[in-house]
Amino acid sequence: MTTLTAFEIASRFAAVKSSPVRDIQAVIARPDVITFAGGIPDASLFERADFAAAFDYVLTHQAKRALQYAGTPGEPELLEQLALRTSRQLPTRPDQLQVTSGSQEAIFLVGQVLLNAGDVILVEEPTYMAAVQAFTLSGARLIAVPTDDHGVLPDALAEAIATHRPKFVYLIPTFQNPSGRTMPAQRRAEVAEVLLRTRTPLIEDDPYGELRFEGEAIPPIASLPGMSAQTILFQTASKVMAPGVRIGWLRAEGPILRSIEIAKQAIGLHSAVTDQLAVARYLATCDLDAHIAKVNAVYRERRDAMAESLAAVLPAGATVTRPEGGMFLWARLGGDVDTTAMLPTAVEAGVAYVPGRAFLLADPDDTTMRLSYVTNSPEVIAEGVSRLAKVFGWK
Amino acid sequence: MTTLTAFEIASRFAAVKSSPVRDIQAVIARPDVITFAGGIPDASLFERADFAAAFDYVLTHQAKRALQYAGTPGEPELLEQLALRTSRQLPTRPDQLQVTSGSQEAIFLVGQVLLNAGDVILVEEPTYMAAVQAFTLSGARLIAVPTDDHGVLPDALAEAIATHRPKFVYLIPTFQNPSGRTMPAQRRAEVAEVLLRTRTPLIEDDPYGELRFEGEAIPPIASLPGMSAQTILFQTASKVMAPGVRIGWLRAEGPILRSIEIAKQAIGLHSAVTDQLAVARYLATCDLDAHIAKVNAVYRERRDAMAESLAAVLPAGATVTRPEGGMFLWARLGGDVDTTAMLPTAVEAGVAYVPGRAFLLADPDDTTMRLSYVTNSPEVIAEGVSRLAKVFGWK
Repeated sequence: MTTLTAFEIASRFAAVKSSPVRDIQAVIARPDVITFAGGIPDASLFERADFAAAFDYVLTHQAKRALQYAGTPGEPELLEQLALRTSRQLPTRPDQLQVTSGSQEAIFLVGQVLLNAGDVILVEEPTYMAAVQAFTLSGARLIAVPTDDHGVLPDALAEAIATHRPKFVYLIPTFQNPSGRTMPAQRRAEVAEVLLRTRTPLIEDDPYGELRFEGEAIPPIASLPGMSAQTILFQTASKVMAPGVRIGWLRAEGPILRSIEIAKQAIGLHSAVTDQLAVARYLATCDLDAHIAKVNAVYRERRDAMAESLAAVLPAGATVTRPEGGMFLWARLGGDVDTTAMLPTAVEAGVAYVPGRAFLLADPDDTTMRLSYVTNSPEVIAEGVSRLAKVFGWK
Repeated sequence: MTTLTAFEIASRFAAVKSSPVRDIQAVIARPDVITFAGGIPDASLFERADFAAAFDYVLTHQAKRALQYAGTPGEPELLEQLALRTSRQLPTRPDQLQVTSGSQEAIFLVGQVLLNAGDVILVEEPTYMAAVQAFTLSGARLIAVPTDDHGVLPDALAEAIATHRPKFVYLIPTFQNPSGRTMPAQRRAEVAEVLLRTRTPLIEDDPYGELRFEGEAIPPIASLPGMSAQTILFQTASKVMAPGVRIGWLRAEGPILRSIEIAKQAIGLHSAVTDQLAVARYLATCDLDAHIAKVNAVYRERRDAMAESLAAVLPAGATVTRPEGGMFLWARLGGDVDTTAMLPTAVEAGVAYVPGRAFLLADPDDTTMRLSYVTNSPEVIAEGVSRLAKVFGWK
């Protein structure tokens, strides 16, 4: 049978790439491959009994609502619980939230609501590639702002704002994806000063903030004086509870919330009510803080295992970040290695990572890679790093 | 506190309206209002025990998968079940399907993948306003094609295609929203002939097809010879199972599926795995056909109740459709009544409908309204129609 190419694809797709992480995951279905590629929580840590009880409650006591159409912003119980959680860092009312199907939908919604074709947005270098994908689909031109170990450089940010008049700045200040680094409080204040002075909106993505293994929590930029009204803050259940339920939320103020609601209507009316009510029940009756403490203890051990394994084998001149939390290490190998070209060989040898090129807009350093330490045990991590060492010819 | 309007809304929103149905629903939270406005299934008919058992199975036996990230096209068990169901009308493989968060997401995805700003698409007059909303957000100019009681007129369709060179034609051939009418087999063949001759893609939306109370089922246009490769067919669990789980699916052939997958990645990675697995379990273990037969018997009675109540009071010159299935009647009152202007008075009097203007692009006939008969019992329907009669001064 010949397939007619009956459909002509929209030009907004010309610049959009498939997610390399999703494509790598499809390739590495082989169970013998140790993957450091995805930001995939360890499923054995999920609170399965608690979630089973929450869904059982919902389907037993709230089934008519759970199976029915619902309002677009989100279920009242869930908005209430999420507002309580976000209010730990920034006073938040339930009506300042929109439930999203994961933070990915928050990213997409904001792009749809704010971006005209050709609009510039500023991002960190490196930055989260699925955000690049979604913003590009909404017509954005992305410009990378230089960074150091503390995140985006305030002077460079001010200069880029003056040059490019961006629609907004997109930052992941805490345990950044892919670099793992965190912007200290002082840098946040400097960045906020630039954004306030130039009246530049901020999209602050905070999926990992609660996964802190050590050091003091640093409040979001949205919580600094004057910033809450010009920031849209994203948070999610995916990294601290479970990604399969697709529950994230965004916090905003003022009329932008109404436009986001209309975009959410157009995209899919509302998020699944079953999952919304189950997550609300979980938050109301279970101890999420205790769960996060348990997860953080495990992830800390894995970060240490990966950092130590890498330190023992990485060649001279290579650098690797040592994050205080989150999911990722960022390695820069240096020399003339090409991590993209090497990936098939690595997968063949039973280990996977994400080549750094996917996260880099300005400086496509082909010697970089993102490594997730959260999915595997310390023993498996050690074996995976040992495979990497063989593939790349490290000592 | 003064709220800065920190955010400048994208111009794609200039032409996009909020859903009047959602807005009406927000207004009529008052429990004493009888609503004929939404296409809302009767929650008391949901198979709550079956869904509770399905979710219980998933959270007990598949929790690690249900709570974890997953592939973008959909869970294999669900794709298998959906392919079996769609194959009753059109041979379908699981890899020809994309799971969507309801048909609304299917509409949005297709708009994102196919539409450039300014592209024309052809729709029926009247047509589903939430599709208008989503296609407009993707930049489409919508042109309405004249219809008769059998749906779109083939000659008018051919003429509109020649004039406007549309990107695609969007049709709801069975129990159309809002008119309730169904395109007979002969008309479908004529429409397919026009589409094949002009190589015009078809987006065929079929949310109501299984809600048939009488008469013979008519296969989708996608199943006519030659049409499957140039049609994207939408189906959904929302009308026959439960909308709260947000599970729909689309069927397509060829490379368009890959672009749809990438758009779905950008919008939200994948639909909730919990709901996907629960619906798969429901379909594998429960008797959906028996459920649909039960629902259809109830809805038939309600359609009859509404048709009879209306026939007893409607003024001379008014017309109302009598669909063989689905959810909606479409009334044209005639004269100089304005159903949009009258809506607040009607809600005040305890009854709600959707003014027809929202569904009409070419001919904004202000005497029309859409009435859903599925949500209320025959007694409540009779009372609601009696309130309508008072408000509009019918006999």
